[in-house]
Amino acid sequence: MSYERIKRIIIGRPLPTERLPEEKLLKRYALAVFSSDALSSTAYATEEILFTLALAGTGALALSFPIALAITALMVLVVISYRQLILAYPSGGGAYIVSKENLGETPSLIAGASLLIDYSLTVAVSVSAGVAAIVSAFPALISYRAEIALLFILILTVANLRGIRESGKIFAIPTYAFVIGLGITVIYGLYLYVTGYRFPVSRPEVSVVEPLTIFLILRAFSSGCAALTGIEAISNGVPSFREPAAENARITMTLMAVILGFLFVGATGVARLYGIVPSTTETVISQIAKGVFRGGFFYYYIQFATALILFVAANTSFAGFPNLASVMAADGYMPRQLKQRGYRLAYSNGILALTFFAALLVIVFKASTHDLIPLYAVGVFTGFTLSQFGMVRYWQKTRHNAAWWRRAVINAVGGLATLIVTVILAVTKFVDGAWIVIVVAPLLVLAFRKIHEHYVSIAGQLSLDQLKAIPPIKNNVVVLVSTVHMGTVKAIQYARSLNPTVIRAIHVDIDPTETKKVNRRWAEFGFGIPLEILSSPYRNVLGPIISRLREIDREMEDGILTIVIPEFVVSRWRQFFLHNQTALILKALLFFWRNVVVISIPYHLR
Amino acid sequence: MSYERIKRIIIGRPLPTERLPEEKLLKRYALAVFSSDALSSTAYATEEILFTLALAGTGALALSFPIALAITALMVLVVISYRQLILAYPSGGGAYIVSKENLGETPSLIAGASLLIDYSLTVAVSVSAGVAAIVSAFPALISYRAEIALLFILILTVANLRGIRESGKIFAIPTYAFVIGLGITVIYGLYLYVTGYRFPVSRPEVSVVEPLTIFLILRAFSSGCAALTGIEAISNGVPSFREPAAENARITMTLMAVILGFLFVGATGVARLYGIVPSTTETVISQIAKGVFRGGFFYYYIQFATALILFVAANTSFAGFPNLASVMAADGYMPRQLKQRGYRLAYSNGILALTFFAALLVIVFKASTHDLIPLYAVGVFTGFTLSQFGMVRYWQKTRHNAAWWRRAVINAVGGLATLIVTVILAVTKFVDGAWIVIVVAPLLVLAFRKIHEHYVSIAGQLSLDQLKAIPPIKNNVVVLVSTVHMGTVKAIQYARSLNPTVIRAIHVDIDPTETKKVNRRWAEFGFGIPLEILSSPYRNVLGPIISRLREIDREMEDGILTIVIPEFVVSRWRQFFLHNQTALILKALLFFWRNVVVISIPYHLR
Repeated sequence: MSYERIKRIIIGRPLPTERLPEEKLLKRYALAVFSSDALSSTAYATEEILFTLALAGTGALALSFPIALAITALMVLVVISYRQLILAYPSGGGAYIVSKENLGETPSLIAGASLLIDYSLTVAVSVSAGVAAIVSAFPALISYRAEIALLFILILTVANLRGIRESGKIFAIPTYAFVIGLGITVIYGLYLYVTGYRFPVSRPEVSVVEPLTIFLILRAFSSGCAALTGIEAISNGVPSFREPAAENARITMTLMAVILGFLFVGATGVARLYGIVPSTTETVISQIAKGVFRGGFFYYYIQFATALILFVAANTSFAGFPNLASVMAADGYMPRQLKQRGYRLAYSNGILALTFFAALLVIVFKASTHDLIPLYAVGVFTGFTLSQFGMVRYWQKTRHNAAWWRRAVINAVGGLATLIVTVILAVTKFVDGAWIVIVVAPLLVLAFRKIHEHYVSIAGQLSLDQLKAIPPIKNNVVVLVSTVHMGTVKAIQYARSLNPTVIRAIHVDIDPTETKKVNRRWAEFGFGIPLEILSSPYRNVLGPIISRLREIDREMEDGILTIVIPEFVVSRWRQFFLHNQTALILKALLFFWRNVVVISIPYHLR
Repeated sequence: MSYERIKRIIIGRPLPTERLPEEKLLKRYALAVFSSDALSSTAYATEEILFTLALAGTGALALSFPIALAITALMVLVVISYRQLILAYPSGGGAYIVSKENLGETPSLIAGASLLIDYSLTVAVSVSAGVAAIVSAFPALISYRAEIALLFILILTVANLRGIRESGKIFAIPTYAFVIGLGITVIYGLYLYVTGYRFPVSRPEVSVVEPLTIFLILRAFSSGCAALTGIEAISNGVPSFREPAAENARITMTLMAVILGFLFVGATGVARLYGIVPSTTETVISQIAKGVFRGGFFYYYIQFATALILFVAANTSFAGFPNLASVMAADGYMPRQLKQRGYRLAYSNGILALTFFAALLVIVFKASTHDLIPLYAVGVFTGFTLSQFGMVRYWQKTRHNAAWWRRAVINAVGGLATLIVTVILAVTKFVDGAWIVIVVAPLLVLAFRKIHEHYVSIAGQLSLDQLKAIPPIKNNVVVLVSTVHMGTVKAIQYARSLNPTVIRAIHVDIDPTETKKVNRRWAEFGFGIPLEILSSPYRNVLGPIISRLREIDREMEDGILTIVIPEFVVSRWRQFFLHNQTALILKALLFFWRNVVVISIPYHLR
């Protein structure tokens, strides 16, 4: 089966360019489509706060509720700030574009690096958390977590190479299924608690490992900030909204903030009321749902809906990462292979790059959400901060009305808040893994710069600005002759047709009998080209050829040195090993010579 | 450090062709040099007989002595037969040459395959047995047997690539050291036994695993036939003897037979007298020597001398295998890369091939002499048989005097004896490993034939017999253009200089903006070549190019289609990934088209 055939089976028929979609979404779909990333983080954010607090013993868990409230307050600030960004960038403005237009190159590259890292982490974290939801319901699968996560990444990769679109309405289902499910769990859980119901928790007490310090509380806060990842997605997706797009996007963002706040604070509150303690084998949401619904059908529904929204959240990165990479490649900061749409209109190379990084993270961190979280939020908050400060500059520059400074202040407050949180995140999570991001991001920025320099440099070298006329070239042709046979004759024919300024033939004397034969036949057929015999005391073919070519190249004043090599093409690959592959090696050696062209004249053997 | 530099350090300076040696040896050196392979087999032959007999219990070991006598009788037959071969082939006649000249192609290829297998096995068996001698003296090394064996193979490889010669006088030392050492052991052991000395053996009794059948006795005999491997070496080496060479070689062969017979029968007898039982951790020779010399200095001397002669024996294959491979390659039965002498005058490719096969055997059989032995003798005896029947044909053909039939009868008797032994070997050792040789040898013969057919076929296709004149060719040139820059201009210059019959340029429309730019610049610079724009609905570059080229190729009546591709050459390898490598893929795709020449015009970037 050919490569082409296999490709068709896996990723489908090629799609023509005019099939790029232009779908516009109603608010109820847009909410679901662009909020899956943000809303799905409630599946693990509460748990991460509890994990950190548990280090200071069971008593410290009580702090989870005020921490959740503080994070929600931070979210309100960020959302208010981003509602303004929607007004200014109705065509969709990610942190990279906003920074580039308002803050300059370096901030935009930092934003770009942060976002690319985040997209990779979103896939790794969401898939890992989705698998954790499944494994909580089916504990027998616990030792295959990493394998299941990799399988889901593979499925997402293939689906996206086929060209799933982020805006597909079908993605609304998991989001609503999850929101409704978790909403009912929270409300019913509160109701049961009020009516006096309690359920036993699997591990009611934890011993004190660390004292309860301000630092530990900040670490718990940092862990919970994972709840805010993805809230900016709506502001990137404005062009997909129905008109009035900006207004609809703003309303949708507010709606999302309300739902997110309710689910996050609600889930944290219920966990607290029932005294739930985090565990490495069962998620907190699973513990709540199992207790509240006594493990029945609705419990499995919750786990399934949680897993589903998390996979959808991971899927959003498969649109975000390749898109951003393509924009950055068009700006010359990333390899240009990332710029073009593939066979099915998806940015295939970007998708494959994301798959690679996400799979690497899942393998290294063994699909543990808890181990991945410390890496996660630093990049997200860096992006928030740069976007908002970019907006401050934007209002300053445009001053579209007298109230410009009011808008600037709102964004400045939001930016300052996220800046402080970024620092808190970096410091409190540094040893747990944030250092990886702090090391990798600047290296990425450096790489972007180097790539850009390279492209700028070659654009200069390739520029036609200095080109006056196109003079004819002088062609010095050398034919390499090992024996005189039909392949050689074809090469000589070709070489003579090249209209050369100078032409010569070279034979290396390895075996005196063979050389005598070559000389005799050369004379006999009279090819009209002088034949030079090079001696080779060490029976080496390449050495004498290379040094003679170097000589010829030096003597030539200008023009091009063309080397014509007769080459056998055998009909079966295994016959390849029955012939000397000197031509191949010679081509590799001459590849870096300037003004040298190597021409293989194939002679096809049956 | 360059490849060239590393090569120089490991295998030395290159040597000019006139340094091929022409040394002639005195009998005392020749005996040592050419007998190491044969004499060294006494280090394991007795043990192999005992191993097989031990299956029938301790009592059966008594049969080892008569079996050793029978094998010695067989050796006498073979030696008498080979003394005649020396007379007929004073220039050295291996089984391949004797079979080729007297029996025809197929027998000669069978002989060649058997010999190549044998040479590989000689290295594997001798090195394994040498390591066993070392390990018997230093039991702590027992778990590293395979690693030590591979190390010795590596040392032999490097030494031979540097160009150690088989005839070096230095190789006489290990042979004499071993002969004297084992000789004294046998004589002193007999003397002690007669004077009533006994020593305790480590494992005096073995239980009965199989009944003592005729088949088992024949198997024991087959195992012991390993003692005869290598006795033909003197007949191959006649040209290295001082004059009268043939006479000296015959005397030396007789001498060798006497020494071999004495050592083999003597060692077997002493082992029997002291009731030695074979063991997987200590060789029989080591047990004898340790008992007789009570583990003193002389014991270590014996082990060291044994290991040394075995490595020298392995070394003889490093001359034999590459020589035979080179002869067979010159006859067109093996790849022609094996024909030429390398950098240091050694047949480097043959040496590396032998290293590969020997190392493979050592790895697969974990350097166990005992597991390798069943594979060994089948090939050797096949060679003996073919050589001797070849000699019968030789006397029949030449009838140089009236007594020709006497000589023919001697060779026929020898040949018949070795033929019977070959069948016994194949049958009794079949399941133990001889089947591998019986499967591989015919496959090798088949491969030799296929290679020969291939070379004959291409010689016909390349022959100049039908060549009348060399007509000028018609050259259809196509320049591929992705963007218009200095690299493209250089390619166009070159293409125009080719003196083409037809010339055209092709651009694939992937991105309408880019295409517009290309069109505008094309018009602006007026390259004088029509530019065709190919549409590509699926944004694929290669597809439209290939189908257009196929069309052009079809329309062309005769002549050559030359495709000129501008190619960037970046100055650092990592920059390679920043450019599309379409040119590379295209070259690979067009490689199998007939009458198509692809020319990359490199444009070097800083």
